[in-house]
Amino acid sequence: MFIEFEMERFQSLYENEVDYNLSDSGLHPLTIKDLLNEEEINHFLNMEIGYGYTQGDPVLLNHVAQWYPGQCENNVLITNGSAEANFILAWSLIQPGDEVIMMLPNYMQVPGLAKIFGASVKYIHLKEELGWHFDMDELQSLLTNKTKLISICNPSNPTGAVMSAEELKQLAALAREYDAYIHSDEVYRGSELNGNETYSCIEFYEKAIVTCGLSKSFAHPGLRMGWLVADESIIKDLWSRKDYSSICASVLSQYIAIKMMQPNTRKKIHARATSMLSTNVELFQNWLNTHPDLFSFVPPKAGGMAFVGYKMDINSTKFANLLRTEQSVLIVPGDCYGMDGYLRFGIGSPSDYLSTGLNLVSQGIKNIGY
Amino acid sequence: MFIEFEMERFQSLYENEVDYNLSDSGLHPLTIKDLLNEEEINHFLNMEIGYGYTQGDPVLLNHVAQWYPGQCENNVLITNGSAEANFILAWSLIQPGDEVIMMLPNYMQVPGLAKIFGASVKYIHLKEELGWHFDMDELQSLLTNKTKLISICNPSNPTGAVMSAEELKQLAALAREYDAYIHSDEVYRGSELNGNETYSCIEFYEKAIVTCGLSKSFAHPGLRMGWLVADESIIKDLWSRKDYSSICASVLSQYIAIKMMQPNTRKKIHARATSMLSTNVELFQNWLNTHPDLFSFVPPKAGGMAFVGYKMDINSTKFANLLRTEQSVLIVPGDCYGMDGYLRFGIGSPSDYLSTGLNLVSQGIKNIGY
Repeated sequence: MFIEFEMERFQSLYENEVDYNLSDSGLHPLTIKDLLNEEEINHFLNMEIGYGYTQGDPVLLNHVAQWYPGQCENNVLITNGSAEANFILAWSLIQPGDEVIMMLPNYMQVPGLAKIFGASVKYIHLKEELGWHFDMDELQSLLTNKTKLISICNPSNPTGAVMSAEELKQLAALAREYDAYIHSDEVYRGSELNGNETYSCIEFYEKAIVTCGLSKSFAHPGLRMGWLVADESIIKDLWSRKDYSSICASVLSQYIAIKMMQPNTRKKIHARATSMLSTNVELFQNWLNTHPDLFSFVPPKAGGMAFVGYKMDINSTKFANLLRTEQSVLIVPGDCYGMDGYLRFGIGSPSDYLSTGLNLVSQGIKNIGY
Repeated sequence: MFIEFEMERFQSLYENEVDYNLSDSGLHPLTIKDLLNEEEINHFLNMEIGYGYTQGDPVLLNHVAQWYPGQCENNVLITNGSAEANFILAWSLIQPGDEVIMMLPNYMQVPGLAKIFGASVKYIHLKEELGWHFDMDELQSLLTNKTKLISICNPSNPTGAVMSAEELKQLAALAREYDAYIHSDEVYRGSELNGNETYSCIEFYEKAIVTCGLSKSFAHPGLRMGWLVADESIIKDLWSRKDYSSICASVLSQYIAIKMMQPNTRKKIHARATSMLSTNVELFQNWLNTHPDLFSFVPPKAGGMAFVGYKMDINSTKFANLLRTEQSVLIVPGDCYGMDGYLRFGIGSPSDYLSTGLNLVSQGIKNIGY
């Protein structure tokens, strides 16, 4: 059974066709010149472009590990983007007949893969009335001795909600009781609006497998740099899968990633993200205010996106397609999350670009009579 | 069922630990400064590192397509290395219960994946006495109405044999009779010692799926640039799998790949490969001559490797491990292909490096009493 990855299909087909792409959930990227100094650029241009270490450059493994309390380089595997990290995790872990519990709404890659690999999938719903958190009692009611994996995205795509240390502790305790793995997609960690870094699940649970990368909070998707963080024995299993999926990651991207993951640079890049998003969340809120009573909105705590409910009598995909064809603006319809009546706006672009895009959305709203 | 990818495991674990890595089958790489001119470097350093097109940059699709007679950009999908191209092909095509026919010896990724995805695998053997070609009648005897896929590697890894147009026509006719796909791994195309480019299988068969990339004949594995070439309807299916496996390839690597795939540059890179290999095959043959009667050798027609049989009373993995631990030289044991009694030497490195490595192998041979 194959299930199309709706959101990626939608983005793949249209993101380069529109004038205003508000479908992306990351931050606007920089250039190599912005990221490397002259000496580093010189080294970079003179590197032989041979095979890299298949687990990842040892220096990069070390820098990544340092961002996770208590982890070392044997706990890290470098991948082609966080997408490949999610893929390898799903492919390694999920067997036909497994039960897996997925947070919903979510980036729909792992739920899709879980079904493709033959698992039965249960959903734990984020609730708007809980500020897009989920209910631990509800999670407990879904757990059984067959539960292989609980998959979360924290900070959450698409809601931008952030789980507290207390919630993560409770989650770990529940998973431990049923001996389930936790997959924690943490690709939005580091872009918190209040500047307080989200706790990594790896701090709380020995069977946590973290996926992350440089595409979202780190703002550089074109590098295709991602990683997995887990117990050494788990990393070993994942690594032997990667031999089959892509062998290793670009040595050029790894060189840039080493710079980006140095603690000082990392902090600067995240401070830039926080500053851009703070401005843009305010801009977005002001835009929503120009359409009174049309939207419900819980402002995100992190991540480059805003998830809103709407009170317009139109299907979300239909509305997104109208915006695409008539206004040349791309946003993600709630249908991609099985949540019609909602829309996801990327808000990580430069403010003037975002502002012009949103004005075009207003025109689209007017055109359908609201 | 999971089967470790023995050769990649062996290389992953040891290739960075030895002084002389003769386990690689590609050509020695260049640097960005060698590949791009000043204007291109300036553009490259000032590119925003955002998401690329998920199918691949249209300019790159076009350049790749031009290398295949009769193909256009809709026939191409860009991947993270040819490894990901092979992976996506296997994952998309192979269902539990399928019969697949694999050339042996071969790069063992697709055979491993075929088993992992539940196929029953039959082997068509390359025969040393046929100059490492296979027998078409033997292939015919393996085909049934259940045969989903025939997988070849042409030019062949590890033997460097090249199939003729006539052989490819016969192969296509057989596959057509049984309505089977042909997977043709053509990553060594372009490094022919006589300078005559190998025919692509896509010229002969409508259900051929070609995998290729810049890691071997193009000499730049660190870019992780690969592609699939097939009928447009097949590419569409493969593309929707790629949404799940890694979304897209590095925009930096794609920019360099565009330059490399321009016809003039492509020809220069391949001429360099031909020249390096011609020198090194002669060097290798001279080295073999210093061990009379110990080896059997059919010189390769293309590709950065030499595959030899040996008459020493030692298991190939044991011998490779002795060379690794005692001489700090890495070569690939025939065991990785299910062919004990053979060894694969990478011969694409600079001649002095190869020569020193081979002298260390002689020392290893002497140490075991030959």
